[in-house]
Amino acid sequence: MIRHFEEDLKHLKERVLSMGNVVESMIDKAIQSIIKEDIELKNQVLKWEEEVNKTQIEIDETCIALIALQQPAAVDLRFITSAMKINSDLERMGDQAVNIIDHSLKSIRCMPQAIIDYITKMSEFVQKMVSRSLEAFVTYNVEMAKGVLLLDDDVDSLKEQIFHEIQECIKGDTEKINHSLDLVIISRNLERIGDHATNISEDVIYMILGKDIRHHQQII
Amino acid sequence: MIRHFEEDLKHLKERVLSMGNVVESMIDKAIQSIIKEDIELKNQVLKWEEEVNKTQIEIDETCIALIALQQPAAVDLRFITSAMKINSDLERMGDQAVNIIDHSLKSIRCMPQAIIDYITKMSEFVQKMVSRSLEAFVTYNVEMAKGVLLLDDDVDSLKEQIFHEIQECIKGDTEKINHSLDLVIISRNLERIGDHATNISEDVIYMILGKDIRHHQQII
Repeated sequence: MIRHFEEDLKHLKERVLSMGNVVESMIDKAIQSIIKEDIELKNQVLKWEEEVNKTQIEIDETCIALIALQQPAAVDLRFITSAMKINSDLERMGDQAVNIIDHSLKSIRCMPQAIIDYITKMSEFVQKMVSRSLEAFVTYNVEMAKGVLLLDDDVDSLKEQIFHEIQECIKGDTEKINHSLDLVIISRNLERIGDHATNISEDVIYMILGKDIRHHQQII
Repeated sequence: MIRHFEEDLKHLKERVLSMGNVVESMIDKAIQSIIKEDIELKNQVLKWEEEVNKTQIEIDETCIALIALQQPAAVDLRFITSAMKINSDLERMGDQAVNIIDHSLKSIRCMPQAIIDYITKMSEFVQKMVSRSLEAFVTYNVEMAKGVLLLDDDVDSLKEQIFHEIQECIKGDTEKINHSLDLVIISRNLERIGDHATNISEDVIYMILGKDIRHHQQII
């Protein structure tokens, strides 16, 4: 029974990591589809979204079944309830990636290279946040989870730089207002994904260290 | 033991509803503080955020304890794990209300009345989504939860109208770019709160009707 439960937990970890990999690819391809104006990449993101939606339901059901049948003790119970929350965060990250591709594929072409570079960098940082928050979760690594919270500050300051560039761009050319607003929203979508990774990391720290350490300022 | 458990569940429902009331007030006062340029309202929102953060931790611990000690069966187990997810959503709505007050209190004064009216209306709709999604949760009401998903469409179209007004406004006066971008973000903050209420409603429908009914298009 115990060995079986350990295998179930291992399998759950693998499922969460694998869902995380798909979500990371969705973020990457969503931004690439906008930069390269590539409809194939856009369709790939939509296909992955369906996969993520299915996986979310499966992981939730696995967690409920594990709790009901195995009646896990403190640490394992916290691990499983954390997995359910992280599962929600991953699915919402996927939604944000889909929100990104909802914008016109021509948003970026006419914009200054500096903005494209910032958006690309922001996307890379956010993907790093996703993978590290999940790695922290499955390896119970508090330091790695704390590192994600610091990366979130970098993502926020990249967003500020993008805003600044966009303001300058609109001042010089009011015809670019529509595309500029699209980019403001895309950078916000990326920021939201970073926020979800931050939430995951806070959940991980809470799961490992116990109570009363959430809400950022008390953690680092 | 059973009667005790029922009382615990009743108490959990009351805590979630009461947390929801505070979050609703946060949304209302955050928007009012921007419209009225009122620093007192802003400070009130910050105080409530601390309260919400504390309540989030308490509700999570209550849920974990209920699962561990009472080993609830299928429906009750789903109710408690849903409560944990809804708890996260409520806390994040509170974060979004704080994000709203982070914007300059002078964002709105110079903007056309139409934009102020749309933002006010959007805020009212979003508050309605929050209260109805929670009401649906504690009364196991699928129809009410479905109604929230429809309200989300209204909120999205209000956001589109705000975007349109802002674009027109910037075209007429490029000096208003900074304030306009602030308002774009504020309307996105409201939209995100609506998304959380939608997530709650989807969780509620899932909890009551069982598997495979999440992801919007399959629900209504």
